[in-house]
Amino acid sequence: MRKTLNLGVFGFGVVAQGLYHVINETKGIKAEIKKIVVKNKTKQRAIPMEYFSFDKESILQDPEIDVVVELTDDSEAAFELLRESLRHGKAFVTANKKMIAEHLDEVYELQRKYGKPVLYEGAVCASIPIIRNLEEYYDNDLISSIEGILNGSTNYILTKVIEENLSYAEALSDAQRLGFAESDPTLDVRAYDPKFKLSILIAHAFGVFIKPDQIIHFGIDRINTADLQYAREHEYNIKLVGRAFKQNGKVYALISPQLIDAKHPLNAVRNEYNAVMVEGAFAEKHTFIGKGAGSYPTASAVLSDISALTYGYQYEYKKRIQENIPEFSNQGLVEVIVSDTDGAVTPDDFEQLLEQHNYVKSVGYKGTVTLQRLREWFHTPGVSVLLPPDAKIQAMINLANEVLETI
Amino acid sequence: MRKTLNLGVFGFGVVAQGLYHVINETKGIKAEIKKIVVKNKTKQRAIPMEYFSFDKESILQDPEIDVVVELTDDSEAAFELLRESLRHGKAFVTANKKMIAEHLDEVYELQRKYGKPVLYEGAVCASIPIIRNLEEYYDNDLISSIEGILNGSTNYILTKVIEENLSYAEALSDAQRLGFAESDPTLDVRAYDPKFKLSILIAHAFGVFIKPDQIIHFGIDRINTADLQYAREHEYNIKLVGRAFKQNGKVYALISPQLIDAKHPLNAVRNEYNAVMVEGAFAEKHTFIGKGAGSYPTASAVLSDISALTYGYQYEYKKRIQENIPEFSNQGLVEVIVSDTDGAVTPDDFEQLLEQHNYVKSVGYKGTVTLQRLREWFHTPGVSVLLPPDAKIQAMINLANEVLETI
Repeated sequence: MRKTLNLGVFGFGVVAQGLYHVINETKGIKAEIKKIVVKNKTKQRAIPMEYFSFDKESILQDPEIDVVVELTDDSEAAFELLRESLRHGKAFVTANKKMIAEHLDEVYELQRKYGKPVLYEGAVCASIPIIRNLEEYYDNDLISSIEGILNGSTNYILTKVIEENLSYAEALSDAQRLGFAESDPTLDVRAYDPKFKLSILIAHAFGVFIKPDQIIHFGIDRINTADLQYAREHEYNIKLVGRAFKQNGKVYALISPQLIDAKHPLNAVRNEYNAVMVEGAFAEKHTFIGKGAGSYPTASAVLSDISALTYGYQYEYKKRIQENIPEFSNQGLVEVIVSDTDGAVTPDDFEQLLEQHNYVKSVGYKGTVTLQRLREWFHTPGVSVLLPPDAKIQAMINLANEVLETI
Repeated sequence: MRKTLNLGVFGFGVVAQGLYHVINETKGIKAEIKKIVVKNKTKQRAIPMEYFSFDKESILQDPEIDVVVELTDDSEAAFELLRESLRHGKAFVTANKKMIAEHLDEVYELQRKYGKPVLYEGAVCASIPIIRNLEEYYDNDLISSIEGILNGSTNYILTKVIEENLSYAEALSDAQRLGFAESDPTLDVRAYDPKFKLSILIAHAFGVFIKPDQIIHFGIDRINTADLQYAREHEYNIKLVGRAFKQNGKVYALISPQLIDAKHPLNAVRNEYNAVMVEGAFAEKHTFIGKGAGSYPTASAVLSDISALTYGYQYEYKKRIQENIPEFSNQGLVEVIVSDTDGAVTPDDFEQLLEQHNYVKSVGYKGTVTLQRLREWFHTPGVSVLLPPDAKIQAMINLANEVLETI
């Protein structure tokens, strides 16, 4: 028999408001909101004031509250709340990707210590049920790679720029107006945000716990008119693609803009949609597509976690428990298309240089570089990087001999 | 603690052989094959003969066997086996879509009666974990529609015909050679096969149990050169699309070839891949894409069911248990593009005729017809039907007044 759960909610922004509506409009859901803790005491609220409290203890100390639902935007306070909630014997549901990604090992250990579950489906690609599928469906499958569009606002911007010829500034402003991008868009357009999601995916796909900072990334903010012209001439789309894969017992990862041809499964993933492609030994390739942002899609994922708790569900981190947890490595090589307006790139930067074109305002290169070189270029103004449509990343097996093994 | 399950397998075709390999190559799987019952006593087997038996009682009467895995191709015998397995206290896993679809109500009742689970993820789109997601993730979401490419062999044929200009006969022969199509391709190309899958999806999405025969369908076998020319001129793809949706408390369904434009999410689903798109009130649109056929993808789904049993998982048929189960209805209208070589179609067949073109060898129509008219045309040689790219199906609210409400 399923239990009716009492929820204590922290925060009442758009996702929490979505959750309130979703719970009230869904028949048969065995959960109800008992208390909502917010900071702002004077703000007008759209629902009765008796729901609200300004004291976190009113949730933590209430023995009738089974689940703490954390929907604030403060990742450090959220982590403290997670710890306290578990310590008080409560399950914890959150959509806070930064908090989960930065504290994965502690979140894992705290669940073991207190025997209470933490669920966070809404933290990765909002409505796409990817964590649950990695945990449950791929329990037995040997996952070789995971890849996708993990950020809705940059995908919205790229769709408008490439397919509708909007300028980058116009597209960004549209995205902000629609609520897909933050007022400070750096986290999105410089590709910090997808690192949170990719590190959580890596934990559930491969059992490796890394810090999001370990992932090498390149944003879409450097894409210039020469890049756009190149893409249009070749009838390519551009998508910001995050990927992780296992090779020779090690896990590699990269987030970078990539040229995408018309037949690529990610080509049809437009606007604020996200997609995750999982490749396993037996199930082969799966693609999951859904809205990666927005109040209701995220609230829907949060409610799905709450619903799972009514069955006593918890993540088992099965890939973490296995015998041979792979190492994470950034010792990889990748083929890139580079344009450089400031003369910072030299042919010596390439392990293998395939093409070089000198234009009036820039120099274009095509060749293979180390992942570490990409990390340097991330901090070098004027350098724009795109992966080619058949992007290949290779493990650097032997630095001295440059012996490569293709994945 | 997870239990190690002993499996009794019926059949040793490609899927069962795939399962044998997947189990043996997967570390940590808490299941092992104890006995395999086959019919043919003289056939050489690739694995040790001590696995095999020719007597079903050797599985049914073995108290150590927890799970019967049915991987034969005889749907009536399979249903009897299901009944006997549950009666003997064993869980049951199958990929037999015809058996499940034709006996859904009995399968549901038998599970309640004996308290033992029946799981069949492999029966619908092989490796795509769609049933589990409908059951678990969409537990609380109000699903409004479900739509997709539910048959791998016809999608393979259409991909080759449209994108690679192969003839229908060549493409069919290729599909047969690769094992995607049966030697008698009628079940696939006349769209009987996706009816099994769609009726199972309808049960888990809307809680309505219907017989596959109730679904109106049109195959790809009538697609003619005029249709292909029309599609190519307009840069459309053609896909065999199955759909079901809820409107005014009733559920409607249709399987038909459809023109698909380049930006449609199904356009990128090629060859033997399947796709299922689910639209809910809160999660909005989700698309799941994966291989819909093949030994390993199906075995992977079967193993995922077995793995779920180690946790005591069972389908809860949550939409079946809700208060207001919708009715199924075929009282609908649909816009179609029709070509007719034999003069069987007349303008009077249309509720609303939008266009008529008289060619040398055929007559082309565009207009709105009842779903019942499509059912008649399915049995009328020379009539080919395609849905337009923005296919609309409407409930027939009031036959007399022809008052329509668009979904």
